[in-house]
Amino acid sequence: MKSLDEAEFTIVGTGLMGASLALALRGKVKVLRGVDRDPTSRRIATPFFDQISAYLTEGIVNADVIVLATPIKTILHLLDSLSTLSKPGTLIIDLGSSKQKIVAAMDALPEHLLAIGGHPMCGKETSGPGAAEGTLFQNSPFVLCRTQRTTDAAFDIAVAMVSAIGTRCIELAAEQHDRAVATISHLPYLLSAGLVATTIDVSQHDKTPWKLASSGFRDTSRLAGSDITMMGDTLLTNRDAVLDAVTRFRSQLDKLENALQSSDETALRAILETTREARATWWEKWETPPERSSGD
Amino acid sequence: MKSLDEAEFTIVGTGLMGASLALALRGKVKVLRGVDRDPTSRRIATPFFDQISAYLTEGIVNADVIVLATPIKTILHLLDSLSTLSKPGTLIIDLGSSKQKIVAAMDALPEHLLAIGGHPMCGKETSGPGAAEGTLFQNSPFVLCRTQRTTDAAFDIAVAMVSAIGTRCIELAAEQHDRAVATISHLPYLLSAGLVATTIDVSQHDKTPWKLASSGFRDTSRLAGSDITMMGDTLLTNRDAVLDAVTRFRSQLDKLENALQSSDETALRAILETTREARATWWEKWETPPERSSGD
Repeated sequence: MKSLDEAEFTIVGTGLMGASLALALRGKVKVLRGVDRDPTSRRIATPFFDQISAYLTEGIVNADVIVLATPIKTILHLLDSLSTLSKPGTLIIDLGSSKQKIVAAMDALPEHLLAIGGHPMCGKETSGPGAAEGTLFQNSPFVLCRTQRTTDAAFDIAVAMVSAIGTRCIELAAEQHDRAVATISHLPYLLSAGLVATTIDVSQHDKTPWKLASSGFRDTSRLAGSDITMMGDTLLTNRDAVLDAVTRFRSQLDKLENALQSSDETALRAILETTREARATWWEKWETPPERSSGD
Repeated sequence: MKSLDEAEFTIVGTGLMGASLALALRGKVKVLRGVDRDPTSRRIATPFFDQISAYLTEGIVNADVIVLATPIKTILHLLDSLSTLSKPGTLIIDLGSSKQKIVAAMDALPEHLLAIGGHPMCGKETSGPGAAEGTLFQNSPFVLCRTQRTTDAAFDIAVAMVSAIGTRCIELAAEQHDRAVATISHLPYLLSAGLVATTIDVSQHDKTPWKLASSGFRDTSRLAGSDITMMGDTLLTNRDAVLDAVTRFRSQLDKLENALQSSDETALRAILETTREARATWWEKWETPPERSSGD
């Protein structure tokens, strides 16, 4: 396996994530190629790559590493195509937000290919290469999931990539990843969409709610602005874990609602105090990511 | 009624909102006094005021305008005290996040007093005078509710204050305000707290969710970090409207859940598309507030 700076990279999908990855990897790999079927995306993303192409077959010529940065259903189709198109020894990494279905498809790849499931825990509600930022990944966790097509040498190069773009590598089993992101990423998206849907409902005859909405609404509704295809694929490929998270959320909302219904200030404060503390503890750690130089 | 720059102001409660208001009003009113029972808050807020006091009676001497910037239950207690303590002609304005109970208490004030309900639609999850910012209010909506103790001259001075701190005045009936904020402010707070409570629940035996939580979680959980006393008072004094918003939210969440449960991509995309567009439309307007100079 070549080292990172000797490797030729092809990024398939030059939307927000693919184009941001290209910006973050520039100068750190030997060659950076992009593939996108959409002419507008290609035009905007052209300066981010050494070469950009509409065709997978053209774009992956000589690729040592292929990164799949498309919505999940497209990732699954691409894995199918790459099983016959890729040269032996090619390492395939994806950036999809749910991992079990992708890792299963990677497990089924021919034995001459290498594959690792990946998920950078970052993003924003704007999409497309025009929104790309080379710093998008910095200090975020980057999950790597080993597959039956993962060798230690392949894993090392994935870790080198993760480190080169400034993210913190977290190795997880796909199932553990999917359960966790259902709660901290996919549930928040549904709550955000549900909040906006409620505001639409309430505002049918009086637009006052939209006029008063301010920074609190801005932040809680931000995820509702995410790309629909990306999020639709994500929810549908992580359905069971997301539905479980929704059920658990409902029971927490029940508790809050019951305390409020009975004007039980003590019970209400107890829940709000616990959640406030937990959020503060998380926030403190999140704001100051662990030093790479420290011993632990 | 005196003009704004001739008026002596007393702000009762020097937490985030009261102290930020003091910073925003500095140099725009004749005298700025603060009242806070808490010695730490007084110490931090001292530089923001011409004079600061632990005692209401001392702080409101000579006040033309008294601004109540405390949690709502304290506002209600203060209105009771001020009904006997304030000199005739004093204008009382509050900054509470629910308005019906406060406006009712203002209606019941003696006829020699003036009173207007107020609600600046801004804030942040940190509290106390140490977090104060003079720019906190800028470009936010500021709701004013007339009461039976509101004259046109009194309303004019409230509008002058709202304008002086850079906010946009929106006049509303208290009931209309309370219904709107239940949806776009109090419901988001409950969803945020419910999300954190769900994460606590899911993470009991495996802390992975906390490790993967990133910017999406940060924004949707931000409101859970709000001051408990302030938010508890707000929820309990706007109970019926909040419970109604929760019920409406549940039925929107049902629709999303049903589409996901049956893997109905078309139905799921239809909801997500509608909410994405509504959020984008709101965001565009919110980011570019109406020009004060325009004709409408």
